[in-house]
Amino acid sequence: MDLTSLNTPVLILDRAIVTRNTERMAERMRANGIALRPHLKTAKSAQVAKLATAGHSGAITVSTLAEAEYFLDCGFSDITYAVCIIPAKLAQAAALMSRGADLKILTDSLDTAKAVASEDHGVTFNVLIEIDSGDARTGLLADSDDIIKIGKIIDGTPNAELAGVLTHGGHSYGADDVDGIKQIAEDERLAVVKAANRLRHAGLPCTMVSAGSTPTAVHGETFEGLTEMRPGVFVFFDLDQLARSACSREDLALSVLASVIGHNRHIGQIVIDAGALALSKDISANTRWPQVGYGSVCDPETMAPLDDLHVAKVSQEHGVIPVSDESAYQRLPVGSKVRVLPNHACITAAAYDRYHVVDGTEVVDEWGRVNGW
Amino acid sequence: MDLTSLNTPVLILDRAIVTRNTERMAERMRANGIALRPHLKTAKSAQVAKLATAGHSGAITVSTLAEAEYFLDCGFSDITYAVCIIPAKLAQAAALMSRGADLKILTDSLDTAKAVASEDHGVTFNVLIEIDSGDARTGLLADSDDIIKIGKIIDGTPNAELAGVLTHGGHSYGADDVDGIKQIAEDERLAVVKAANRLRHAGLPCTMVSAGSTPTAVHGETFEGLTEMRPGVFVFFDLDQLARSACSREDLALSVLASVIGHNRHIGQIVIDAGALALSKDISANTRWPQVGYGSVCDPETMAPLDDLHVAKVSQEHGVIPVSDESAYQRLPVGSKVRVLPNHACITAAAYDRYHVVDGTEVVDEWGRVNGW
Repeated sequence: MDLTSLNTPVLILDRAIVTRNTERMAERMRANGIALRPHLKTAKSAQVAKLATAGHSGAITVSTLAEAEYFLDCGFSDITYAVCIIPAKLAQAAALMSRGADLKILTDSLDTAKAVASEDHGVTFNVLIEIDSGDARTGLLADSDDIIKIGKIIDGTPNAELAGVLTHGGHSYGADDVDGIKQIAEDERLAVVKAANRLRHAGLPCTMVSAGSTPTAVHGETFEGLTEMRPGVFVFFDLDQLARSACSREDLALSVLASVIGHNRHIGQIVIDAGALALSKDISANTRWPQVGYGSVCDPETMAPLDDLHVAKVSQEHGVIPVSDESAYQRLPVGSKVRVLPNHACITAAAYDRYHVVDGTEVVDEWGRVNGW
Repeated sequence: MDLTSLNTPVLILDRAIVTRNTERMAERMRANGIALRPHLKTAKSAQVAKLATAGHSGAITVSTLAEAEYFLDCGFSDITYAVCIIPAKLAQAAALMSRGADLKILTDSLDTAKAVASEDHGVTFNVLIEIDSGDARTGLLADSDDIIKIGKIIDGTPNAELAGVLTHGGHSYGADDVDGIKQIAEDERLAVVKAANRLRHAGLPCTMVSAGSTPTAVHGETFEGLTEMRPGVFVFFDLDQLARSACSREDLALSVLASVIGHNRHIGQIVIDAGALALSKDISANTRWPQVGYGSVCDPETMAPLDDLHVAKVSQEHGVIPVSDESAYQRLPVGSKVRVLPNHACITAAAYDRYHVVDGTEVVDEWGRVNGW
C-alpha cells in the first residue's frame, strides 16, 4: 500500500532512516569504546529497540515503569529506569525484578535511599545516584555530601546494591550550536566522573558511570571515565535536534501524514487534519527557528519541503498553514496529502498507538508503542 | 481506595463537579430554549457523554471518526462530526451510517461537496456547511457565494441532504473578559443565522443552525435563530477557561495526581513525575495568567492551591516547581502527592486511556476514553 492511501492523521516512520540512525549511533559509540544504552522513551517500541540495540548487549533505558514492563515482556531485561523512584513505586519495580528484569533504579534523595534500604521487597535493588551536571532538573551536584551519604545507606543494606552514578546533560537541547553542545558534553562527563570518583574514594562501589543525551552523544569529544551513553531521540531525530545541529535533514525519520481539509481563502490559509493532538503543542525548535511553528510541511512522497509552508496555529484537530499565493491552493487541493515534520519526536509520537513504517512510500509494517503509565 | 494511593501520574475526575457542570449547562440551554449537542472531543468518554446528554435527545458532537465509532458503539447515534470531511473519509462515514449512525458531516469546500454529490456510498449523507463567524480556522464567510453553490450541489443529489449550517466561535477562547465573550457570542450567532437565512431565501433547506463554544454558550445573551449549541470543555473546565471567566475555580473537574520525586535544593525546586506527557505542553492560560506555567499545584485532598506553586518547566516525565523557601520542602517531602490543574483539559486528558473518578478523595470508578484516530 502506498502511504498516501492511509487514513489521516497517521504517524509515519521511515525504516531506512531509523535503521541508518541507529547503526550510526552504534558505530559512533563503538568507535569511542563506550556502551550504548539507548533511551526508549522516544520510540516506546520493541521493533525500534531491536534496531537500537543491534549488535549490543541489549541494555536499554526507560522513562516509566510501564515501558519497563513492556520491554521486559518483549525480551529486554537489562533496564535502567532513569527517573527518580519514590517509595510507592518500589513494589512495582520489585515485581519486574521478580519476573527477570535486571532493573536499575535512580534516586537523588536521602529519604528515598532510606526507604530502599529499610524495605524488604524480596529483591536486591540496583541503585544509581543521579547527578545534576547542569541540566538543573533532578540530581545532586557532583560535590554534594549527599552522594556519599546515599552511597553508604545503599551499600549498607542487604536490600540494595550501589550500581553507580547517572546524569543527563539535557541542557544540551538548549545549546545554540555545536561548540555549545561540545562544552555541555564535557561538563556532563566531568560531573558524573567526579561523582563516581568521590564514591570510590569513599570506599563505595561504582560500576556504572552513565551519561548521555542525543546532542552530547553525537558531539562529545571524549567519553573517558564513562561506561555508557543513553541518547534517545537519535533514533528519529526531529526539527529541534536539526535546529541545534545534532543531525542533518535527511536523518529525520518521523513525520505525520495529514490531509488538506479546507482552503480558507478569505484569510489565506490551508487547513489540515493534524492539530494539537496529532502534532503536539511542542514548539521547541522555534527558539532557533520560529518559522517552523508546529511543524514543517513537506511533499508526502519526496519529503521535499513545500516552499516555507508550516503549521502556524493548531486547535485540537486542525492545523493552519498560512499561504501567500494562489499556487499553494492549486498544489494542495482539498483531500491532498502532506507530511509534517514535528518539533519534538518524543512528544508527537506519544499521541499514537503505532507507527506506520514505510520503505520509500510503501507501507511495509506497523510497529506498536507503549503509552501511558 | 483513597486517591492518594493511586500510581502516579494519573488523571483524576471529580464526579460531583462534572455532574454539576453538565447539569448547569443543560439547565442554561433549556432556559434559553435551545438544544444542547455537547462536543465530546474533550471527554471522549461514554460515561461523561451520558451525564452531558442527561434529559436530552442524546445528540452529540465529535472531532474524529474514531470518536463517532466509539460513541455509536456506546449507544449514541445522533452524531455531528464537526471537522470538515474529505472525500477519502466518506466510505468510513458511510459505514457508520450503515451501522445506524444518524451522522452529520461538514464541509466548506465546493470540491468536497461535488465528491459527496457524485459518489454513491449506499447512504444519504446529511451535510452541514461550515461558516466562519470570526474564528478564522475553517468555514465560509456568511456572505460567501459558495454557501449557496454548495447548498445547491448537495440539494441536487440523491446521495445527500442539506442539513443546515454550523459555526464554532472558537475565537471566544482568545477573549479577554466576559464583555468580549458576549460580543463574540453575538457575532457567532449573527453569522450562522445569516448564512441559514441566505440558504432559505435561495429555496434551500436549512433545518440545523448550529453554533457554540463553551465561553459563548456560558455567556451568550440570546440564541435566537439557532437550533443548538455545541460547547465541549464545559464538562471539565480548566485554567484557560477560568482565566477567561467562563467558569469559577470550583468548577474545575479535572486534575493530574502526581508524586514529588525529588528536591533540587541547590536550584530551589521540587520535581514531580508529571511532565510534558502527563500535563501536555499546552500553556494557553498563560496569555492571561503567565504565573500558572504548565499547571497550578494543589493539595491532593482539599484541592486548595499550595501558595503560588506551579509547574514552571516540563520535560517528558518531569515537572519542575520552583520554590522560594524551606517550608515547601517540608510540606511536600519526596513521595508526597499533589494535584495539578491543567491549562487545557482537552489536550491534557488525551494522554490518558481512562479517568480515575473520585467522590471527594475516594476513587469510585474508572471511565474509559477513546483516543487516536
